Amino acid sequence: MAHVLGQNQYGKAENRIVRVRRDSTRHEIKDLNVSVSLRGEFDDVHLTGSNANCLPTDSTKNTVYAFAKKYGIESAEGFALLLARHFVEHSERGVVRSARIRVEEYTWDRIRSGPTDTGHSFVRSGQEVRTTEAVYDGDRFRVISGLRDLVVMNTTDSEFWGYLKDRYTTLQEAYDRILATQVTARWAFDFHGNDGRRQPEWNQSYQEVRRHLLEAFADTYSYSLQQTLHAMGTRVLDHRPEVDEVRLELPNKHHFLVDLAPFGLKNENEVYFAADRMYGLIEGTVHREGTTPVIPVS
Amino acid sequence: MAHVLGQNQYGKAENRIVRVRRDSTRHEIKDLNVSVSLRGEFDDVHLTGSNANCLPTDSTKNTVYAFAKKYGIESAEGFALLLARHFVEHSERGVVRSARIRVEEYTWDRIRSGPTDTGHSFVRSGQEVRTTEAVYDGDRFRVISGLRDLVVMNTTDSEFWGYLKDRYTTLQEAYDRILATQVTARWAFDFHGNDGRRQPEWNQSYQEVRRHLLEAFADTYSYSLQQTLHAMGTRVLDHRPEVDEVRLELPNKHHFLVDLAPFGLKNENEVYFAADRMYGLIEGTVHREGTTPVIPVS
Amino acid sequence: MAHVLGQNQYGKAENRIVRVRRDSTRHEIKDLNVSVSLRGEFDDVHLTGSNANCLPTDSTKNTVYAFAKKYGIESAEGFALLLARHFVEHSERGVVRSARIRVEEYTWDRIRSGPTDTGHSFVRSGQEVRTTEAVYDGDRFRVISGLRDLVVMNTTDSEFWGYLKDRYTTLQEAYDRILATQVTARWAFDFHGNDGRRQPEWNQSYQEVRRHLLEAFADTYSYSLQQTLHAMGTRVLDHRPEVDEVRLELPNKHHFLVDLAPFGLKNENEVYFAADRMYGLIEGTVHREGTTPVIPVS
Amino acid sequence: MAHVLGQNQYGKAENRIVRVRRDSTRHEIKDLNVSVSLRGEFDDVHLTGSNANCLPTDSTKNTVYAFAKKYGIESAEGFALLLARHFVEHSERGVVRSARIRVEEYTWDRIRSGPTDTGHSFVRSGQEVRTTEAVYDGDRFRVISGLRDLVVMNTTDSEFWGYLKDRYTTLQEAYDRILATQVTARWAFDFHGNDGRRQPEWNQSYQEVRRHLLEAFADTYSYSLQQTLHAMGTRVLDHRPEVDEVRLELPNKHHFLVDLAPFGLKNENEVYFAADRMYGLIEGTVHREGTTPVIPVS
Repeated sequence: MAHVLGQNQYGKAENRIVRVRRDSTRHEIKDLNVSVSLRGEFDDVHLTGSNANCLPTDSTKNTVYAFAKKYGIESAEGFALLLARHFVEHSERGVVRSARIRVEEYTWDRIRSGPTDTGHSFVRSGQEVRTTEAVYDGDRFRVISGLRDLVVMNTTDSEFWGYLKDRYTTLQEAYDRILATQVTARWAFDFHGNDGRRQPEWNQSYQEVRRHLLEAFADTYSYSLQQTLHAMGTRVLDHRPEVDEVRLELPNKHHFLVDLAPFGLKNENEVYFAADRMYGLIEGTVHREGTTPVIPVS
Repeated sequence: MAHVLGQNQYGKAENRIVRVRRDSTRHEIKDLNVSVSLRGEFDDVHLTGSNANCLPTDSTKNTVYAFAKKYGIESAEGFALLLARHFVEHSERGVVRSARIRVEEYTWDRIRSGPTDTGHSFVRSGQEVRTTEAVYDGDRFRVISGLRDLVVMNTTDSEFWGYLKDRYTTLQEAYDRILATQVTARWAFDFHGNDGRRQPEWNQSYQEVRRHLLEAFADTYSYSLQQTLHAMGTRVLDHRPEVDEVRLELPNKHHFLVDLAPFGLKNENEVYFAADRMYGLIEGTVHREGTTPVIPVS
Repeated sequence: MAHVLGQNQYGKAENRIVRVRRDSTRHEIKDLNVSVSLRGEFDDVHLTGSNANCLPTDSTKNTVYAFAKKYGIESAEGFALLLARHFVEHSERGVVRSARIRVEEYTWDRIRSGPTDTGHSFVRSGQEVRTTEAVYDGDRFRVISGLRDLVVMNTTDSEFWGYLKDRYTTLQEAYDRILATQVTARWAFDFHGNDGRRQPEWNQSYQEVRRHLLEAFADTYSYSLQQTLHAMGTRVLDHRPEVDEVRLELPNKHHFLVDLAPFGLKNENEVYFAADRMYGLIEGTVHREGTTPVIPVS
Repeated sequence: MAHVLGQNQYGKAENRIVRVRRDSTRHEIKDLNVSVSLRGEFDDVHLTGSNANCLPTDSTKNTVYAFAKKYGIESAEGFALLLARHFVEHSERGVVRSARIRVEEYTWDRIRSGPTDTGHSFVRSGQEVRTTEAVYDGDRFRVISGLRDLVVMNTTDSEFWGYLKDRYTTLQEAYDRILATQVTARWAFDFHGNDGRRQPEWNQSYQEVRRHLLEAFADTYSYSLQQTLHAMGTRVLDHRPEVDEVRLELPNKHHFLVDLAPFGLKNENEVYFAADRMYGLIEGTVHREGTTPVIPVS
């Protein structure tokens, strides 16, 4: 029985790039990690040892850095779209049929020094990483943006009770618990580049989605992390028309109330042990009616 | 426009378990990291705050530990199948429609002490982690096993030249280079549990697939990492009839020849700088003709 | 020739604790990682198998959580001092002669929701970890505080030239480069607890030292990372009388200018490759005249 | 009050190097991570912005790679000694007074392919990293070798009872428990290079010290991890005359017996939860009578 070469892709991953805009003495920076992945006519590369169709991953890396100079980096999404389009439309001999660009972006604040700042001094800020992925197949774009490592906690307004019990259930019901999670979120855009619609304002969109995720987490009186997840996804769809779908992966970062009774102390929801593993893991998608979800389930 | 709750799943992730078999003074151990994920009738949990259909993740954790005692752990795959079947078939009120169990397994060797060993002393061995994932939907099982962090290197018998050149190509051709990669492999089995076929000998299967991956890497005179990838996947399919499909993710761990000419030295492929990032990333699937690939593309 | 048991110490490491102050609906949180290490009369524990002098590490853990309830956590330093004193002064049978408490503190911001906040909703902020270490030997305290993972960058005002050249020197001089580092800082206090002096305002002290480190990094026109290091340490000593000594470990996070000439582009200090390894590592101490440095060199 | 520049050092850290010996078709490889740190006349570099005394860290990196070619790498220790001596003895204008070279070494096995091997194919083996540090001050060498991440477990022959109890003690005594740890070991040699003594056989010494650590862990019936620590250090000193001192850092990787009684099951030391944090941390030195310990306490 013969064997078949199935889906395959390749490129240069994790190109770390810092782009400085020096138009004035007040510099602007973008700090990205860019990964390129190409799909196309690569059967011979795998089967015969001929590299005639194989653009070196090194060339894709060079392209990333050259584009950063030529076009600047206005947003992670805009930069990813430029690169994805390039690899398909300017593919030598048309071997590249589809390109996927993934970007991680790290955020920096300016260092204030007294009442002002130097204009060129920065400090890494926040825990979270902004992410995006753009795929172009010669016809349509698909853009999925997101974030990860956004760690949040509510110290009250969270309960968990009335759950299903089987013979392995020993958990005590909780009427006032800490709810903490490390948010991984991805959201898909209705922009596809082939219907005349303009690109969203990517940076503003990111800031607003992030804000709505945080606010929904804070404002939801929670009976389960699932309920909070749904509230977070829904809030984004309610406020951001450019977004069609939100997927959230929420590990339940358990905070266990420490039993202090042996020491004659009463722990009134004040002292917690923050556990590493195991952890509950809650994942789910919320999308607009009539759209087909595109964000992969992990 | 209304919003829809799409795919969702939950469970307890990363249950770390060590199971000791003490039938004799020569103990046996299994060291696993087990993650449970359940899909089913969970709309109300997300939408109404009612947990009536929500089996706590804590109960799924308890089940993992209880099953380790009741049934022992013969193999990662066998244990995952048992758990997946349980969560669906013994689901209270039938709310669980499908269960996915992921397992990582860590390997240990015995510590030899003089000519013998104590029977109860072990040392962690190898770099790689054995993985498996079993999904059960009430009818069929799907098993995907694998490994990750298997780091391999050939110090010769690797070339890369004759490749496609575009305007961003500056790479020099290489006629004798180091080829090194950190293998992530997954492979899918033809076992589905509903046609009377017996389960494969999981542990033997794992050892043999691993051996064929290593041997194919070593034996292939390589003109590209893609070609090596294809040889590795093909070798497994050639020798292991229980496997239908192999997917490999191979980062090209670049080893750059250091230019020693400024110091009056000639570097005859002897001194390399081992780089971290960026890296080429080569991914691909090889499967049997007539089968439909099931391993997700990442 | 006989063998001697030398320095030894033990305790429970990495007790993760979240302490919530719920005096009002506006909660306050402290998120710490506390490690206890005890030195004393433990020869028999090592030599004879007798544990008569061995307070279990589990008891030291219980003490950490109980103290968090009893005394609250006003600052990492204050909490460490309390614990260090306890383990020595309340040691059963006087077996503990000296105690060292290390603390890592993670910072959180409040989540704003609209014009206000919920009072109980938090998001992890910043990259850096606040650290402290308090040692008590029954007579004096020694407190060394610090931070790590504070990542900073200047996009100009950094040069490096006029350096020593040996036969292995190939580096090109730089007259305008990026200077970036990941600050690990430790500083020692003049507080020792045995001369009637009051404890410093630990939280304010930390905020001010951190601010001076950042400002000195930003304000220094740099001819070497060594020079910047010295400016940072000196600035702290100039402004914070409670600090006697500052030690800095500054990895030079190299940003290499990408050569874009092959693509007909001129890189005017705009596009950089951010490298992982290898990296320059610059370490140094600045202390007040007449004091003896106490911060260990790593 | 003036400020003083105290201890300072600098160099290039984490030079990743793979050295291939190709004398025959049966290649040999060394895979190292080399860090250079220089101490000397560097006050001006910090104070005045003059780099006249500053050998670039880049030059120290070049030296590492050039020496790998010129002298080969017989052992981590031998290579570190060569480099340390060079930086002091060939220092331009004598500015370097002392040099410290740290090396991590990663081990590889050959990939067997059928009855033989290719001679050039390797797979990373083991979990542990071999370490060494050589310091040269123009007169004497000090060599401290070691290993880290050697993970070991005994599934029986470990007890813990009869310990000191204070008011925070709740721990239950254990008469048969798992004892597991992740060994970090360092050991100091009596070789100093200035008394005509030859260098030890470094590679053989390492293999033998490692073997004795493992055997002592396996063979010791343990009443505490402290006791096991002492047995491990003593065993090395008993068998390896070239070693004067051993320091061990042993985190107690707790394995908690899972309570299965709620499920009608009896857990006869068979099913354990392997915890991440918190953990006991046991540290200690054993040295020969009459020698002064030199390994720093962390």
